[in-house]
Amino acid sequence: MTSFFAAPKVIAILGVGLLGGSVAAALRQRQPGTRIIGIGRNPDRLAAATARGLLDDSVTELSQCDPSWDLVIVGTPVDRIVADVRNVAAVSRPGTVFTDVGSVKSSICRELCGSVVSGFVGSHPMAGSERNGFEAARADLFQGRVTVVTPTIGSQPEVVCVVREFWEALGSKVLEMSPEDHDRTVAMTSHVPHVVASALAGILQSDQRALAASGFRDTTRIALGDADLWVAILLSNASAILENLDLFQESLTGFRDAIRTSDKESLRKLLADAKVNRSSL
Amino acid sequence: MTSFFAAPKVIAILGVGLLGGSVAAALRQRQPGTRIIGIGRNPDRLAAATARGLLDDSVTELSQCDPSWDLVIVGTPVDRIVADVRNVAAVSRPGTVFTDVGSVKSSICRELCGSVVSGFVGSHPMAGSERNGFEAARADLFQGRVTVVTPTIGSQPEVVCVVREFWEALGSKVLEMSPEDHDRTVAMTSHVPHVVASALAGILQSDQRALAASGFRDTTRIALGDADLWVAILLSNASAILENLDLFQESLTGFRDAIRTSDKESLRKLLADAKVNRSSL
Repeated sequence: MTSFFAAPKVIAILGVGLLGGSVAAALRQRQPGTRIIGIGRNPDRLAAATARGLLDDSVTELSQCDPSWDLVIVGTPVDRIVADVRNVAAVSRPGTVFTDVGSVKSSICRELCGSVVSGFVGSHPMAGSERNGFEAARADLFQGRVTVVTPTIGSQPEVVCVVREFWEALGSKVLEMSPEDHDRTVAMTSHVPHVVASALAGILQSDQRALAASGFRDTTRIALGDADLWVAILLSNASAILENLDLFQESLTGFRDAIRTSDKESLRKLLADAKVNRSSL
Repeated sequence: MTSFFAAPKVIAILGVGLLGGSVAAALRQRQPGTRIIGIGRNPDRLAAATARGLLDDSVTELSQCDPSWDLVIVGTPVDRIVADVRNVAAVSRPGTVFTDVGSVKSSICRELCGSVVSGFVGSHPMAGSERNGFEAARADLFQGRVTVVTPTIGSQPEVVCVVREFWEALGSKVLEMSPEDHDRTVAMTSHVPHVVASALAGILQSDQRALAASGFRDTTRIALGDADLWVAILLSNASAILENLDLFQESLTGFRDAIRTSDKESLRKLLADAKVNRSSL
C-alpha cells in the first residue's frame, strides 16, 4: 500500500486549540509539504492561528468552502465531536478520512463508525496540558507519546492504516484497542486522577496555601484543566469512572484504616506496594 | 543581637541524607567559613559524604567525640528525632542550639521543648524530593522555599532567633507557627496528598501502564517516597490526617454524586472551584 504522505496532502483541522494547533505545528515540522486548513467558528482565532504560521487557509462556513481535504482531524470538545464530524463529512469528497482527538471513545465510535461516516476511525493522543488554545501548541507534543487508535468491526482497514500512519508521522507510538477497552483504561489512568486531584485542590483553605509545596502542587496540577472540557469528558465515561472510583475508594479506606489503628505493618506494605507500582511507569 | 554567622561556626548534622546533605551543600555555598561535622551510625556513608566535600569531619561515637558544635541539625526520620536530640544534647556544651527537619512537629516539640533540651526549637523546611540520600542533595533545595519554625511557650527567644537566622542564611523564607497549627496544616498540604497519591498509584494494573501519561504520573509522583519514612510521618500525625481525610472524602463524594446523576451544573461548579483554588498557589 502506498504511504499516505507519499504525495503532498491537504489536512483539515476542525477546532484549532491546544491539540489541533499542535497537530498543525507538528505537520509543519515533519510534513512540510502538507497544506493545512483550519475549520472553526471564530474567524479572528483562525486568522491569529494563520498569522502564527499554523494554517494555510481557514473555513468558517462549510456550505461555502472547497472541501479538497484528504484527512480531517477533529479537535473539538468530546460532546461536539459526533456532530462536527457529521457536518464536515456532509460536504467532504468520498474517500475522505476522519479522526478525532477526544479523550473518550465508546460513545463517539458507536455513533460514527461504519454508519453515516464510513471513513471515520477514532484516536486519542495521550498528550496534553492543562493549558488551552493554539498559543500553547507544541510541535513535539505527540513525539514519543502513545496515541490510541480505536477501530471497530465496521472500520475499513485502509482508513485505519491512514490514521495510524498520520500519528506515526507526528512521532507518536500507536496502540490499537477497542473503544471500550480504551475507555475503561483511561478511566483509571486519566479520569479518576482528574477527579481525585480536583477533589483535593477544592478543599485547600486559603490560610494553608503558604505550606502547599511541590507535593501538593504536583498532585493537583491536572485540576487546572478547563472545567467545561472536563465535564464533557467525565459525563461521557461515567460508568467506567464510577467503577474505578470504587477501586480507589477501597484502596483509600485501606490506608485510612491502617492509620486509624496505627497498623504499622499494613501501612508500610500499602506504601511500599504503591511505590513499586508507581516505579514501574 | 549579634548575627549568628558573624563569627565562623561549627554546625553538626545528625543524619546526612537528602535534607542533611542539602543543609551541608547550602552552607558550603552560602557560609563557606562554617565547619560541618556529620554525625551518624554508618562510617562508610559519612566517609562518602566527606569525600563529596559535604563534611569536614564525622562522628560515629558520641562518647568519644569533641562536641565543639554551636548548632545541631537533626535530619533523622521523625520517629527517631526525640531520642537523637537527647543523645547529642547529653554530650553537647551548654548553650548549644538544636533544631530538626521533621515533617511532624507536635509530638517532637511536646517531648523536647523547655524540658531536658532547653536549646531546642523545631523546624520543617517545606522542601524535599522523593529521592533519598546525600547523593540527591542540592545546595539550592531551601532557596525560596518556606521553612516553618515552631516555638513553644518554653522556647528561649535567642534560640528561636538563631534557628530563624540559620534557615534564612540558607535562602529560606521563615514562617513561625505553633507545632499544632503546623501539623494541622501539613496534614492537608502534604500528608493527605501522600495518602491519596499512594492509594491511586497502588491500584494501577500492569496492562493499564501504557496509557498512564503525565497526568497520572504527576498526580502520583509523591508515592515514590520512602515507605518507612512515611509510615513514621503518617502515624505521628494520625488524628489531623484522619480529620482532613474526612474533608477529602466529602469532597470526593460530591464529585462522585455529580457524575452518577449526570448533574452537569454541579460538576462544572466543583471543577471550576477546584481550578480557581489550585490557580491561587
